[in-house]
Amino acid sequence: LVRIMRPDDANIAGNVHGGTILKMIEEAGAIISTRHCNSQAGEPCVAALARVERTDFLSPMCIGEVANVSAEITYTSRHSVEVQVNVMSENILTGAKKMTNKATLWYVPLSLKNVNKVLEVPPIQYARKEQEDEGKKRYEEQKLDRLETKQRNGDVILPVINPEPHTVGYSQSSLIHLVGPSDCTLLGFVHGGVTMKLMDEVAGIVAARHCKTNIVTASVDAINFHEKIKKGCVITVSGRMTFTSNKSMEIEVFVDADPFVDEPRERYRAVSAFFTYVSLSKEGKPLPVPQLLTETEDEKRRFEEGKGRYLQTKAKRQAQMQQAAQQ
Amino acid sequence: LVRIMRPDDANIAGNVHGGTILKMIEEAGAIISTRHCNSQAGEPCVAALARVERTDFLSPMCIGEVANVSAEITYTSRHSVEVQVNVMSENILTGAKKMTNKATLWYVPLSLKNVNKVLEVPPIQYARKEQEDEGKKRYEEQKLDRLETKQRNGDVILPVINPEPHTVGYSQSSLIHLVGPSDCTLLGFVHGGVTMKLMDEVAGIVAARHCKTNIVTASVDAINFHEKIKKGCVITVSGRMTFTSNKSMEIEVFVDADPFVDEPRERYRAVSAFFTYVSLSKEGKPLPVPQLLTETEDEKRRFEEGKGRYLQTKAKRQAQMQQAAQQ
Amino acid sequence: LVRIMRPDDANIAGNVHGGTILKMIEEAGAIISTRHCNSQAGEPCVAALARVERTDFLSPMCIGEVANVSAEITYTSRHSVEVQVNVMSENILTGAKKMTNKATLWYVPLSLKNVNKVLEVPPIQYARKEQEDEGKKRYEEQKLDRLETKQRNGDVILPVINPEPHTVGYSQSSLIHLVGPSDCTLLGFVHGGVTMKLMDEVAGIVAARHCKTNIVTASVDAINFHEKIKKGCVITVSGRMTFTSNKSMEIEVFVDADPFVDEPRERYRAVSAFFTYVSLSKEGKPLPVPQLLTETEDEKRRFEEGKGRYLQTKAKRQAQMQQAAQQ
Repeated sequence: LVRIMRPDDANIAGNVHGGTILKMIEEAGAIISTRHCNSQAGEPCVAALARVERTDFLSPMCIGEVANVSAEITYTSRHSVEVQVNVMSENILTGAKKMTNKATLWYVPLSLKNVNKVLEVPPIQYARKEQEDEGKKRYEEQKLDRLETKQRNGDVILPVINPEPHTVGYSQSSLIHLVGPSDCTLLGFVHGGVTMKLMDEVAGIVAARHCKTNIVTASVDAINFHEKIKKGCVITVSGRMTFTSNKSMEIEVFVDADPFVDEPRERYRAVSAFFTYVSLSKEGKPLPVPQLLTETEDEKRRFEEGKGRYLQTKAKRQAQMQQAAQQ
Repeated sequence: LVRIMRPDDANIAGNVHGGTILKMIEEAGAIISTRHCNSQAGEPCVAALARVERTDFLSPMCIGEVANVSAEITYTSRHSVEVQVNVMSENILTGAKKMTNKATLWYVPLSLKNVNKVLEVPPIQYARKEQEDEGKKRYEEQKLDRLETKQRNGDVILPVINPEPHTVGYSQSSLIHLVGPSDCTLLGFVHGGVTMKLMDEVAGIVAARHCKTNIVTASVDAINFHEKIKKGCVITVSGRMTFTSNKSMEIEVFVDADPFVDEPRERYRAVSAFFTYVSLSKEGKPLPVPQLLTETEDEKRRFEEGKGRYLQTKAKRQAQMQQAAQQ
Repeated sequence: LVRIMRPDDANIAGNVHGGTILKMIEEAGAIISTRHCNSQAGEPCVAALARVERTDFLSPMCIGEVANVSAEITYTSRHSVEVQVNVMSENILTGAKKMTNKATLWYVPLSLKNVNKVLEVPPIQYARKEQEDEGKKRYEEQKLDRLETKQRNGDVILPVINPEPHTVGYSQSSLIHLVGPSDCTLLGFVHGGVTMKLMDEVAGIVAARHCKTNIVTASVDAINFHEKIKKGCVITVSGRMTFTSNKSMEIEVFVDADPFVDEPRERYRAVSAFFTYVSLSKEGKPLPVPQLLTETEDEKRRFEEGKGRYLQTKAKRQAQMQQAAQQ
């Protein structure tokens, strides 16, 4: 998958939106896993995104650069496929290439005839036995995490009148989007990548409202897609800031689906996730971020939880760097 | 201007969004008036939309039909151009053509070098003197109306927690949109047509939330574009229902612009307008609309004002039909 | 068909992509030929693109200019329609107009009820007998050419590890695209124009990778659409350089369709074509192009074939210029 980055893919500073990259990653993953799941005779199916593991944006991509997206199936369980997707940015004028993303996605094959039926996945061959064991470990871990997040999804974002600058209420934002045909797979459900692009759009607006500078996506925490969203739904994507460190902001984003035409069903929470942004100067250097002012008990609790995630990620990264240095 | 209507231009029932049509109308108007204003030697300029007169959607357009949009300059004042735009839908399989819209737009030429400088418009030739007089009358009327609406723009839409069905709070909606390069003219300001498309999107969601059926745009009241919106702004488009008759709904839509990056300016009201929708059955017949439940004094006042506009439009249409019958 | 060129229609130097223009040309052709084929009572049908004759890009188009596309039916055989499409670029600020393209397209009417049934085309009236004769000659020629290309379609593009600059492997590129609803006609098959736009995108990336400068489409050789591509397919568009002259590059582009869901069918070659690009300096002057380094026997053979096409085109153009000078 190769695509030139266009003006509409980027913000006014010329940095490609993280959401555009997430959407390309998901398209590559959906194609390779749908192809794999249909590789044996049997019921035709479409692979639906179930989960994206934490993804870091290693370096910014710019208008005019070419994004090279490659995907590989790294593990199969009975009902799911793990796909590893790498994104390289290539400046075709200088020839310079940079790794911008490594993402891991999980897909589940749904029958084309009956969307609620999960089919079996043809097994892949592993070069070494330990690859299979490591894949199985990753599979078990993500399964556990998906179960956990399924339970903590009741929260809503309440509006605030006349908020003070740098409070949570000041930057919180939400958008609505009517799900059109181009947003959907053959089964008539929204592509996971479309949802992630909208989530990044809202998170980016929250971040920019908070710090009033050029901002870019630094990372996205694991996202679980518990519920499908159908064509014709209205989706409400809401974001609020949960934590700020000296140079980063964490934003929680919710996606609620409202199947309002011809459906007896109530509005429901389809997805939620944490996005991390950094603020950049005109020269592309990280800027200090104004501290988030927390007011309510809930806001203070979420700030502490965000701090926990921040410190954990930081520790993990330092451990990896030490490990790399020792090798 | 000719274009095939695609799935993305329409709702799930296959009816093309009113906003898509408004956007095409405005593109045609912008081309013809920019061309006219540059037809004499002098400073190069871009025509910016100042106002759209009340527009009726006479019959629905469907996916696969071809929209034929034609534009003509009908009046010029010293600093503005009146453009008449007609839209026909053509079923290229049967050859059937129907008039779907007649719109009148006013443009103002802004200098390409200095966006705050309004240039002079080259005068057009009239076939008959009375055409000029009628145009002048229309010009004076719209000028008066623009001044009036400039004053009543302070209102905001306050959020409601747990609203009852069919109240104003139940269906009110808002979306945010980051203004990208493709939304903008050569001067770096949002095309009026892009704004109208977003307004129709929000109004349509409000209408569908209220009556939970397939809805289509029936008409749009005069829209005045008092303030330009710059590339990189976040715009918030909010809609609330103001009035229901037996078979129609009136929705008020506001557009607020937030020049949040690198700009000292506060959020401001850029546009507001009233959209009227009807609800259609699967066979395309108008359905009764649930009555709007008004709660606050302001809601009751707006309902009465909406009723006034509704009765006035109805009376005007009956007068026109009688006149037509007598001819 | 009239449209303002936007930032996303162009490369970073502001030149509109050849693919955008090809897409507009095809939309105009599809509308006029579908309209014509349904002009007599009978089975409703949709005109499908069968072939585009060689198309030259006479002068570049820029962002902000208006593309004026006009189409005319110039010949009808029993089962096909020849359409002549002209594209003018208009600078609406200066009023300057330039002819940018003259294209000839062939369409075939397919029944709306049975997509494999080719219907009869209502004959057109010719002003002079010799117009019909000339049309018939063009019809016979293209028919022969279509038969020939149908046979030479087996080739594939193999990836190369660590290629040297200016070799074929160095610049070859491919993209994949999942066919969505907006890419398709009423029959659920990809618009020829959408395919051509993707082909131009890949060819442009190959050209830019080779010479690392701003490049523009100079011409496209005749393209034959042998096989339809259905909604839900994944298409792989691959390009490799075949020939360089002092100031131009020829790129061969393949389109392979993979009906990977719900279809027993194997991946197949849907279209292939040759694109020619030139490299431009910042002032828009043609730059010398680095010579293509051929390594394998096949590459050397394709280079010679490309040289043949290049010399033939050059000779034809010189003959035309001499003819024009003598008149």
